[in-house]
Amino acid sequence: MASFLVNGWPARSIDAADRGLMYGDGVFRTLVLREGLPLNWRHHYRLLSRDCERLWLACPPEKAILQDLARADSGPVAIAKVVVTRGASGRGYAWAEGAEPNRIVAAWPGLPDTAGAADEGVLVRRCELRLAIQPRLAGVKSLNRLENVLARAEWSDPEVREGLLADADGRLVEATMSNVFLVAGGRLATPSLERCGVEGAQRARVLELAAAAGIACEVRDLAFDDLLAADEAFLTNSVIGLWPVAAFGDRRWAPGPVTRRLQRLVADDDARGA
Amino acid sequence: MASFLVNGWPARSIDAADRGLMYGDGVFRTLVLREGLPLNWRHHYRLLSRDCERLWLACPPEKAILQDLARADSGPVAIAKVVVTRGASGRGYAWAEGAEPNRIVAAWPGLPDTAGAADEGVLVRRCELRLAIQPRLAGVKSLNRLENVLARAEWSDPEVREGLLADADGRLVEATMSNVFLVAGGRLATPSLERCGVEGAQRARVLELAAAAGIACEVRDLAFDDLLAADEAFLTNSVIGLWPVAAFGDRRWAPGPVTRRLQRLVADDDARGA
Repeated sequence: MASFLVNGWPARSIDAADRGLMYGDGVFRTLVLREGLPLNWRHHYRLLSRDCERLWLACPPEKAILQDLARADSGPVAIAKVVVTRGASGRGYAWAEGAEPNRIVAAWPGLPDTAGAADEGVLVRRCELRLAIQPRLAGVKSLNRLENVLARAEWSDPEVREGLLADADGRLVEATMSNVFLVAGGRLATPSLERCGVEGAQRARVLELAAAAGIACEVRDLAFDDLLAADEAFLTNSVIGLWPVAAFGDRRWAPGPVTRRLQRLVADDDARGA
Repeated sequence: MASFLVNGWPARSIDAADRGLMYGDGVFRTLVLREGLPLNWRHHYRLLSRDCERLWLACPPEKAILQDLARADSGPVAIAKVVVTRGASGRGYAWAEGAEPNRIVAAWPGLPDTAGAADEGVLVRRCELRLAIQPRLAGVKSLNRLENVLARAEWSDPEVREGLLADADGRLVEATMSNVFLVAGGRLATPSLERCGVEGAQRARVLELAAAAGIACEVRDLAFDDLLAADEAFLTNSVIGLWPVAAFGDRRWAPGPVTRRLQRLVADDDARGA
């Protein structure tokens, strides 16, 4: 069973007038807890704060969230979600001065078993839904996630583990719940998220670890043809880690050396703790 | 004080795991109640059902919502909001088969006094934020409303009553909480909502009443230059009714005959009841 804390107190419900519900007026991050400690916390908190700033939301203090995460009764390993909303308000899109944000921390004990996927790689498809271009919200993990919901609803075959998303102009941007990396000629590339998409904390860490390991990486516009031409491709997300892409349409890949190296670097970083 | 019903029961809170909060996975409509009866209900319920269908959501039966609205302890006149979410679920964008939608009905007693605005017209500005083009969600009044929230936050001058919104290509689409109509040469025009924007129930009724009254109306792409060249312009929304646009930048208008006629037709329709 999941456990929830609302503003630090055990609670399973929120005010029905919360702007997070009414307008999706808030942000969130999903992460892994080990013994109550969040993995990759430096990127999660940095991006949560950055996203709050993008929406003129007051980000809860780091200490308060860490206390919530430690108090969430979640066992040795768990998935946690941190949600920050603009709080309850009356009617209308304008918010009141001094409105108090609400923070919701939820924890689900255990982790899905995705070792096979991380080992052998996954089959992915291309979604028909195209991401709208909205620079004002690009990169932000806001509570406005209907595009992801509708894209994920396009398939039910459990063999297909992810759906790749193009933007309105056809560029490769991300997948429904993960970011995408390509490897070509030993160099790493990942789509720019300046027009749309969500900047995942795992993506940020992979970029950081690659740079530290001397693996060149470009953040730039990418096409689906770049994926087909790539030597390796993988998906990142804070729960799954790194999944090699094994198949897309007729194209097949065996997990490659750069993917394997980055999987190890991420595992090492997790082992060092938050 | 507002009163809330959740699935027909008085309640001020919802499950913190509701997908309406987690992803903005739901839709809503805002309307006026007179003695517990919703005005312009035929368009509100039609559009609510249509929006649910667009999101593969089961729309609650009309009877259930009407009962909620009648039970909302809201006095002689009130503003009500009907929200339908995909209900609570576990983690992840995919939803479980057979997930039960939640319906939330809220009522705020009284109405804002906007008689002056409806009489004399209002000053409007142009928002800097541009609406993203997303045909998959265009027209739908979903709970993903961050664009409206951010656009409304662009100004605080109470003299400015509305902000006009352009899409990514610069077309005039709507305002933050209302739809826009122009009158030129006795003909009515309102922006197409096939790329973005929200289809308001008041807009739908004005189109219907205009057609019945023999006023030609086109739904098509419009530019801000069309607004500047228009003989009349007005805003529609279910709470404010019709507001003449009195000023935009240097351009000034006196409320015109087509606007006045449509204000009367809407008032007559309201007087006939839902």
